[in-house]
Amino acid sequence: MSKERLYLFDTTLRDGAQTTGVDFSVEDKRRIAAVLDDLGVDYVEGGFPGANATDTQFLGEKSALKTAKMTAFGMTKRAGRSVSNDPGLQAVLSSRADAICLVTKSSDYHVRVALGITNEENLEGLAQSVKAVVESGRECAIDCEHFFDGYKANREYSLAVARTAYEAGARWVVLCDTNGGTLPHEVERIVGEVTKVIPGSHLGIHTHNDTENAVANTLMAVRGGVRHIQGTLNGIGERCGNANLTSIIPTLLLKSEFADKFETGVTPERLQKLTHASRILDEVLNRNPDRHAPYVGESAFATKAGIHASAILKEPQTYEHVTPESVGNQRHLLVSKQGGKSSILATIERLGIPVGTDDSRVTRLLDEVKNRESVGYSYEAAEASFELLARRMLDTVPRYFSVDSFRVMVERRHNARGKLVTVSEAIVKVFVNGDNEPLWSVGEGNGPVNALDRALRKDLGRYQKHIEGVELVDYKVRILTGGTEAVTRVLVESHDTLSGDRWFTVGVSPNIIDASFEALLDSINYKLMKDNAQAA
Amino acid sequence: MSKERLYLFDTTLRDGAQTTGVDFSVEDKRRIAAVLDDLGVDYVEGGFPGANATDTQFLGEKSALKTAKMTAFGMTKRAGRSVSNDPGLQAVLSSRADAICLVTKSSDYHVRVALGITNEENLEGLAQSVKAVVESGRECAIDCEHFFDGYKANREYSLAVARTAYEAGARWVVLCDTNGGTLPHEVERIVGEVTKVIPGSHLGIHTHNDTENAVANTLMAVRGGVRHIQGTLNGIGERCGNANLTSIIPTLLLKSEFADKFETGVTPERLQKLTHASRILDEVLNRNPDRHAPYVGESAFATKAGIHASAILKEPQTYEHVTPESVGNQRHLLVSKQGGKSSILATIERLGIPVGTDDSRVTRLLDEVKNRESVGYSYEAAEASFELLARRMLDTVPRYFSVDSFRVMVERRHNARGKLVTVSEAIVKVFVNGDNEPLWSVGEGNGPVNALDRALRKDLGRYQKHIEGVELVDYKVRILTGGTEAVTRVLVESHDTLSGDRWFTVGVSPNIIDASFEALLDSINYKLMKDNAQAA
Repeated sequence: MSKERLYLFDTTLRDGAQTTGVDFSVEDKRRIAAVLDDLGVDYVEGGFPGANATDTQFLGEKSALKTAKMTAFGMTKRAGRSVSNDPGLQAVLSSRADAICLVTKSSDYHVRVALGITNEENLEGLAQSVKAVVESGRECAIDCEHFFDGYKANREYSLAVARTAYEAGARWVVLCDTNGGTLPHEVERIVGEVTKVIPGSHLGIHTHNDTENAVANTLMAVRGGVRHIQGTLNGIGERCGNANLTSIIPTLLLKSEFADKFETGVTPERLQKLTHASRILDEVLNRNPDRHAPYVGESAFATKAGIHASAILKEPQTYEHVTPESVGNQRHLLVSKQGGKSSILATIERLGIPVGTDDSRVTRLLDEVKNRESVGYSYEAAEASFELLARRMLDTVPRYFSVDSFRVMVERRHNARGKLVTVSEAIVKVFVNGDNEPLWSVGEGNGPVNALDRALRKDLGRYQKHIEGVELVDYKVRILTGGTEAVTRVLVESHDTLSGDRWFTVGVSPNIIDASFEALLDSINYKLMKDNAQAA
Repeated sequence: MSKERLYLFDTTLRDGAQTTGVDFSVEDKRRIAAVLDDLGVDYVEGGFPGANATDTQFLGEKSALKTAKMTAFGMTKRAGRSVSNDPGLQAVLSSRADAICLVTKSSDYHVRVALGITNEENLEGLAQSVKAVVESGRECAIDCEHFFDGYKANREYSLAVARTAYEAGARWVVLCDTNGGTLPHEVERIVGEVTKVIPGSHLGIHTHNDTENAVANTLMAVRGGVRHIQGTLNGIGERCGNANLTSIIPTLLLKSEFADKFETGVTPERLQKLTHASRILDEVLNRNPDRHAPYVGESAFATKAGIHASAILKEPQTYEHVTPESVGNQRHLLVSKQGGKSSILATIERLGIPVGTDDSRVTRLLDEVKNRESVGYSYEAAEASFELLARRMLDTVPRYFSVDSFRVMVERRHNARGKLVTVSEAIVKVFVNGDNEPLWSVGEGNGPVNALDRALRKDLGRYQKHIEGVELVDYKVRILTGGTEAVTRVLVESHDTLSGDRWFTVGVSPNIIDASFEALLDSINYKLMKDNAQAA
């Protein structure tokens, strides 16, 4: 039986750019567009030419995409102007995009309140705008803003807007839940009713996550009949975000309710690039990936309950609804209190450390991990520290350098002008292995850990070249049993600006400075180990 | 028309504790349980007695909840043992919980693969376990693990498990989508079929977010007939999380499709505490709140599109699906005046600070709070610092003492026996108001903050008697923008062992020592203010 085609329309670079704190450069847009093209989406909505210089430039370039259609976003023409006299619409028409998506009001309330024109003027402007796009030789999509709210208040007018767009020649009429307040069963019902007026093969859906139902609303719309899906990578977007394509795409491909009926430009083979695509976006946005993200999160296939962990090793499908490999992710058995030998073995295997299952060193490693966890270490979120520990016990890791002593001082005092100032300084004394003379480094910082970090990274002799690109990007502190006398756990995230790698290390001590120092040392040693730096 | 009751079962402290990186202390559990009780949920699942020391202790205490039922989690008895000979089940039965929730396998595949027993043995163990709970005089809920997957593979057996639980006397039979792979339309259909066997008034739903449909699946189950909802605050939980009660509750109360038919223990008035409850959990977990979270996120009612912003100013309902006030959140656009001032006024009133609504000092306080929040302060969880600030600006707070300077030193070095040791020392120079001579105090501690705390509390002259019983019980550090160079926010919890009072203070600085110092100073000043200590 031949399958019906679903069309994927990605708006990460346009509606996603409305996210608080997101600001794509032209180079960012090129990079994300290429990732989306590679993944197999049908449309990449690149931006709003005329609205800002970045988007005008990006959509003024010839598209470098292999299969996806580069799409420009704009608004239907204003009332009281002709198409040729509307600078906004002209900016979109004069872009080099392959397709154009225009937004129109489809709720009579918004036509009245936001535009202040008549319902008929709105329909006329819409029809003329669609015709102008079609005449320019490009595919036209129409985003019907506030469609669902409009439909509930004045069904006839919202349908008239959709029909006008379709009859004027729009390839796609996209039903938008702009405020994100519509619920899944309503979407399914309303879409079903709209398909009686416009064929589903010309209908699209655009949802927002304000009730945490954007993904479900999209799936319900497909069940209701639409064949075009708008969304963003990682669900970025204004307020609570847009429909998350990173969750929708695997569901369409891996769940038989959809996979048996439909196919998309994203093939099962290309789907394995999904986790990578998601991570690249986070990297461009300089965000920490959401470890709990469905399908692609680091924890999506992780478990820490002991009974579950042993069952997963027996038969993965007992606790996994799809395989992690299908979306390019990995199974993660957490090294933790509840886990046990089997999950540590699985981690060792994944890290590629060669060892037999009955190797007594593995038992010693397990004991060591348990001892450390009992005093506050946690390797769940600090895999680099775990790998360092495991390779030290099971493999060979050279001793690159040792810190003989350090001193950190924080002083608050009145300066010469009588103002209160605080100064932080650190001094470290390091022996690089094989050298007889110590290296002394001094660092100043805006806090004791920053000063210590700077001193430590200032001079590692012949190893310095390996850590040139390394920076500390996040630093988390947790007090484990309450009070300043309690144990402190520090988690450090490091980033190598040269390779793009990120890794996490942990340190534990009653003293926050000692704990930070340990995590910083692990971070440097991990990098040297990964680089196969040569010991003296 | 009278509405039907929906029962909310929160499992933040049990299934939520399976989240990667989450580790609640007993004190954390007490705090979160009180917040949930205050919000109006019906059941607080507190943990798994017998599985770890924290949960055994927490559920061994008499519940301090006002209306919610404290619930203990456990497993049905093992095959081949009697109820009285099963130590796991006995640990749960001997807890002081008001209700007990037991998990049972409800998929024949899992009975065979994970338990290795016969289908009948499983049913028998279930019936005996339910009866044991009922005989102990407590309400019993049964979590039917893998119900949906089991139902799709062997409908009859899964229904037999549900029926056995119901007939043995379980108040609730909870259908669990343990792997999180079931889709909304399937949940609605299957739940509808189950209600033909067991009345919906005895059915519950428990979903996971592996396809980003946990919220929709829960809503669909309610449409299908269940009347008991399990979920967690902020959707925390293993892998991709559990159903997010923080999104589900407002949808049930604010969307007419549900609100017209149902009511919950969370009244519209209590719903205004939702944002606060969500933030407190993040605070306990030392996480940055998800700013894009539906309903409660900082960006949930924020917009950056110019056209939307002006429309919102004209008529908020044009771009908001519910009002931010209904969930205790704020419109981000109007950040200031309306939302801010009224909530600050409400807090001032609650604290009993006498002030008129048109007092210009309130506006100055509002500006000060906004300035401080923009550089990283957060008063949501540090009310003692807020009260101190407010009373200083609106009322009169004496200046008790001032710290002229301090010096903190941490040194790691080899001691006389060649062992590496770390020493932390602090020196503070304090002027008690009215005295001419400074007081010098030296403190030693197992970290810089502990040393500083000890030095500061060692000698405050005539105020010393007020702080004799004060101790620092928790200390939380959050790095606000990543990296050691970023701003540090420190939250300190203090406890007076004499009065039993607890209070929270905050400090912010690029330097962790400065930030800690500020929070420690606020803590002492707050205590002196509360004691009405006499200034010189």
